[in-house]
Amino acid sequence: MSSVIRPLAVSLGDPAGIGPEVVAKCWDGRSEFGLPPFAAVGDPRSVGNVWDGPIELIDDPRQADSVFDYALPLFQISAAEADVPGQPSVAGAHCSLDSLEIAVGLARSGSAAGVVTGPVSKEQLYSIGFSHPGQTEFVAERCGVSPGNVAMMLAGPTLRTVPVTTHLPLADVPHSLSAALIEARARTVLRGLQRNFGIAEPRLAISGLNPHAGEGGMLGREEVEIIIPAIDTLRSEGWRVTGPHPADTMFHTAARARYDAALCMYHDQALVPLKALHFEDGVNVTLGLPIIRTAPDHGTAFDIAGQDLADPRPLAAAIRMAAYCVASREAAE
Amino acid sequence: MSSVIRPLAVSLGDPAGIGPEVVAKCWDGRSEFGLPPFAAVGDPRSVGNVWDGPIELIDDPRQADSVFDYALPLFQISAAEADVPGQPSVAGAHCSLDSLEIAVGLARSGSAAGVVTGPVSKEQLYSIGFSHPGQTEFVAERCGVSPGNVAMMLAGPTLRTVPVTTHLPLADVPHSLSAALIEARARTVLRGLQRNFGIAEPRLAISGLNPHAGEGGMLGREEVEIIIPAIDTLRSEGWRVTGPHPADTMFHTAARARYDAALCMYHDQALVPLKALHFEDGVNVTLGLPIIRTAPDHGTAFDIAGQDLADPRPLAAAIRMAAYCVASREAAE
Repeated sequence: MSSVIRPLAVSLGDPAGIGPEVVAKCWDGRSEFGLPPFAAVGDPRSVGNVWDGPIELIDDPRQADSVFDYALPLFQISAAEADVPGQPSVAGAHCSLDSLEIAVGLARSGSAAGVVTGPVSKEQLYSIGFSHPGQTEFVAERCGVSPGNVAMMLAGPTLRTVPVTTHLPLADVPHSLSAALIEARARTVLRGLQRNFGIAEPRLAISGLNPHAGEGGMLGREEVEIIIPAIDTLRSEGWRVTGPHPADTMFHTAARARYDAALCMYHDQALVPLKALHFEDGVNVTLGLPIIRTAPDHGTAFDIAGQDLADPRPLAAAIRMAAYCVASREAAE
Repeated sequence: MSSVIRPLAVSLGDPAGIGPEVVAKCWDGRSEFGLPPFAAVGDPRSVGNVWDGPIELIDDPRQADSVFDYALPLFQISAAEADVPGQPSVAGAHCSLDSLEIAVGLARSGSAAGVVTGPVSKEQLYSIGFSHPGQTEFVAERCGVSPGNVAMMLAGPTLRTVPVTTHLPLADVPHSLSAALIEARARTVLRGLQRNFGIAEPRLAISGLNPHAGEGGMLGREEVEIIIPAIDTLRSEGWRVTGPHPADTMFHTAARARYDAALCMYHDQALVPLKALHFEDGVNVTLGLPIIRTAPDHGTAFDIAGQDLADPRPLAAAIRMAAYCVASREAAE
């Protein structure tokens, strides 16, 4: 395999969503977007519904490299029935899950260099018995990693953020934090910056929970009781960690230059600045896995599927990011 | 007074902070920054400590317009003793409070067109018996307005945000929200957009509290029980209000174009995106007052005072913003 470039495996996601359209548009724009060879995984009919470009079915990832020049290489996953854009179905949900399973399997076996996952509908997946909170936890399990040991990084050109807690009501965030949780997440992020981003001595900025990072305990005690002890522990292990930083003064240009990633206490603290700055090119990167996995940070957008309205740039950014992480890992080996 | 331009009154803030330096630098850069005539209010020695430009003492705001061309017009407030940059003192705290009092008085009397307040040290003010949470509440009281009826807007070139709750521990935010509070704050903001910004039919975007704005109650109930009822009430009054919006998707470029201000549920939800996007030119604007009041969004920075390191752009933005609000009000009258 030495002379053949291993492709990235890109699952199409829900066949009734915008996944097939943006994958096809990424192939169309492969030169403009600077994309490496990738192989789509899903139902070719879902691509044909929204795109009249060339598709070539493949059954071995090694074929993707040569096919990629003239056609979209595609591992066929057939749904029981053809899907209609914008109309999610049970068959489509099964197809999206099968596509994810195969794409992850190609990456785990080493046939694919990594996996980029297209958008699925959690609601649809739940209706067919899917029991993971999302694709990230599914991928973690398939890789034999506890979901607690992976971290969801949102990465844009000038900012990388990781939330310690994710899909919790805001009222549950303060009592869900612990020094052990912050330390575990921080280590996953720091090792991920080393392994996936090639940063030998990564710098991690840790946010406070409260306004002004609690102002010395006047505006909340979590910094004093939980976050500072976690930072002390991480520093004692030799990691370059700073904080707790007031969240409102850690995301401007000069501040962002001082760290490689920001560890935030809750969902919106991490995602608000990331999306304010990098809405079109923020990428979801799962850290802590043996494989490379990225995803565009958007959903199925059933409401605009099949109307040629979907923007391929987020997926293109996710494919580029996966290729970057692959190169970083290979350089380290 | 018809042919004389009323100046803005700019209080120097704490004489040992960076206030005197940035006020002087704003006068130096008055053409570059596009600033209207303003009169400084404070101790001239604190300016002389850090600047060798021309100062002319005035005792009537009408003098400022003609003086402004060749010297920094200054209403003299003398501290009991001269302050040293970077070394806050009790005398300096009294001076900063007197400067604020006089500057607000000039605006209330109509002698000044509005007031721009330099940075004070709350710690120093508390030590001399100041009992307000900050300058905003002091100004409100002097104007005869209940602090609950003013709103702190952070305004940058492409985004205006207002927090419903401000300096609270994050854990206290959820149970501090009520429909009545959100409605009151929203009305203050909407009227402020009309009066201070000349927007006849302002559009207000209201955020959710929880990730994904609660996802229909799955990730928190505050949207369903508190925020949506408040939005319904405001709409029934004829206001153009949208939401609750997931905070992470309301601050990118295209989203910002859809509203004139964003009403956020807590401090960092409002300040994180504002400062990520507009760190150097975000301005604090107090809405709900009979006078115009703005402030730069930074503190005394005692650690860099007297070293010629302070950036005058935030104050320049605050002065420009005050002038813009004055013009909007005058156009409406």
